[in-house]
Amino acid sequence: MAERVFNFGAGPAMMPEPVLAQIQEEFLNYQGIGASIIEISHRSEVFVNILNDSIDRLKSLLNLPSNFEVIYITGGAKSLFAAVPMNLIALSPTKTAQYVVSGSFANIAAREGSQYGSVDTSVSSKSDGYKSIPELTASNLSKDSSYVHITSNNTLYGTQWSEYPMTGSTPLIIDATSDFLSRPLDFSKIGMIYAGLQKNLGPSGATVCIVRKDLIGKALPTTPSTLNFARLIENNSMVNTPNTFAIYVVGLVLKWIKENGGLESMAEAAHAKSDLVYKALDHSELYIPFADGKNRSQMNITFTLTDRKLEKIFLDEALQRGLYALKGHRDVGGIRASVYNAMPMDGVNELIRFMKEFEAKHRP
Amino acid sequence: MAERVFNFGAGPAMMPEPVLAQIQEEFLNYQGIGASIIEISHRSEVFVNILNDSIDRLKSLLNLPSNFEVIYITGGAKSLFAAVPMNLIALSPTKTAQYVVSGSFANIAAREGSQYGSVDTSVSSKSDGYKSIPELTASNLSKDSSYVHITSNNTLYGTQWSEYPMTGSTPLIIDATSDFLSRPLDFSKIGMIYAGLQKNLGPSGATVCIVRKDLIGKALPTTPSTLNFARLIENNSMVNTPNTFAIYVVGLVLKWIKENGGLESMAEAAHAKSDLVYKALDHSELYIPFADGKNRSQMNITFTLTDRKLEKIFLDEALQRGLYALKGHRDVGGIRASVYNAMPMDGVNELIRFMKEFEAKHRP
Repeated sequence: MAERVFNFGAGPAMMPEPVLAQIQEEFLNYQGIGASIIEISHRSEVFVNILNDSIDRLKSLLNLPSNFEVIYITGGAKSLFAAVPMNLIALSPTKTAQYVVSGSFANIAAREGSQYGSVDTSVSSKSDGYKSIPELTASNLSKDSSYVHITSNNTLYGTQWSEYPMTGSTPLIIDATSDFLSRPLDFSKIGMIYAGLQKNLGPSGATVCIVRKDLIGKALPTTPSTLNFARLIENNSMVNTPNTFAIYVVGLVLKWIKENGGLESMAEAAHAKSDLVYKALDHSELYIPFADGKNRSQMNITFTLTDRKLEKIFLDEALQRGLYALKGHRDVGGIRASVYNAMPMDGVNELIRFMKEFEAKHRP
Repeated sequence: MAERVFNFGAGPAMMPEPVLAQIQEEFLNYQGIGASIIEISHRSEVFVNILNDSIDRLKSLLNLPSNFEVIYITGGAKSLFAAVPMNLIALSPTKTAQYVVSGSFANIAAREGSQYGSVDTSVSSKSDGYKSIPELTASNLSKDSSYVHITSNNTLYGTQWSEYPMTGSTPLIIDATSDFLSRPLDFSKIGMIYAGLQKNLGPSGATVCIVRKDLIGKALPTTPSTLNFARLIENNSMVNTPNTFAIYVVGLVLKWIKENGGLESMAEAAHAKSDLVYKALDHSELYIPFADGKNRSQMNITFTLTDRKLEKIFLDEALQRGLYALKGHRDVGGIRASVYNAMPMDGVNELIRFMKEFEAKHRP
């Protein structure tokens, strides 16, 4: 196998190497059928089995209660920023929804939501530069909302809801694009959860959505069929030709997660990896962690250098060590190390070795 | 290389073998960067080059006039059945559009269009069971329409517009999912043309759209950002993370088309392949071609057997000969041989040999 870098990019992100190897191996001839996985009909028995198998695996990994449906939507999470209000905002007669604003994607979701109704964005951590996750309690939960929308993990800022809020009878809708399948979930709190694939699940271009059945059926009449939850459920995610390659890869990733201990093990590994990096940051005089302690993300670790001019040198030298894509998002700057499920501990150890050596050379 | 079948499926369809081989070869390490093509950021220089290169190649192959824009949309052609009216139906103050109904997908497009305005479907070939393409002339062109929508090639029925109609000042919008890049196009007739990738272009899950610039800017306020043509153009198809794998594959397919003589050569090959099969049908007493002579598709050749009970035997024996996915669509029945760009002449010759042998055994 060719030499691979440790890829700390925020997404499309590093994938488990055994998954990539299997895709490569069977790419010209999927399981002896004489055709590539990307060449076969989505209606063929071969593909329908792949689709059903991936949905079954997901249900099993998540221990999903039977009052939830799993669907694939072609399009990234941003397609869901429209699909969520189109399908759910009419659950309240006044077409109002609450969006908790914990960062950039939360803002974009709220703006898209406002195309379809009235949106309450008063609960926000904008005032502290999105270093924290806002508190959502019974007292600031918007009344009579169709739903309340949160962003589970903020990829740009490196913050994360360590525990989801209780929202009573208001359905909690979660964009979990950047931490889905990194930990077990308590579905008693959840109305719907969705995730673009390109962090922990597979290639970009599709989104997996898990929706509580009682929320289905109130879509606005102008909802495109390909974004209509009821239509997607009726058609087993195949209102039209889905992203077959992505669904196939997700199936392999789910198998890999299962073989590696399931979501409990993913959560342990995420703790272990991110704790190591945060510890290194906290014991440094050169690196300044960005996020508030209690809201630190276990997926994306963001920090700056006391001397900002050193950041470019840091990135250049990291790249020479095979530590790839550590540059922070253009809106935030600094350094970001994304340690999704597929990032091995070796990668984290190598990053920390490099950081210590770099600090020794450049200590302020 | 493992043995591969001749895949006559209607889509996701057979791909050029050199393209598949290149994907496989560089799948774990794209051009020496140490990561797979599906693991890298869509904002990385590597991917942005792939995207721009694929758009440039498409413009060059099509000889595209400068008043057109090329965009990728994540989602299949059916997403466009909503996106087209959402972006264009307000070009007429009365929000009316005309849909020429030449088959199943044309019907679905019209039904989806009716969610956004008033739709005229009076020009139709329903009365002859979609064996033909309806004639669209100045006299039955709907007045004051925002646009007139046609389906270039009807995958289910095996019919095709041999030449696009003249629609004067009414923009002609073409769903060319199943024949795009099989022939040169005259853009003086076209307002917009779009195609899901999974026939002649690449894997499923995205659509390429070519839109005349003067049609942009009238989107309904409820158009999702990910389907908004103006937003997509402003953001070079990256309103959000696109289907990076599909765009990469399209680039390779476009290179393969160019190396194999461009669209003129694709058109010649499509003629040659489909003519051979139609000739075999016309000289047979067992096989009955479905489509009217003048409207026969060069992509999907549909026929039945005089003794319908023989069709299952035909399909089973074909499969044993490595002739895969010849079953007609469930709505039409019979046999369908799809001979997209990637189907080699060898496959067509083998199909005809088999058909003759089968007829010799089962002649009525």
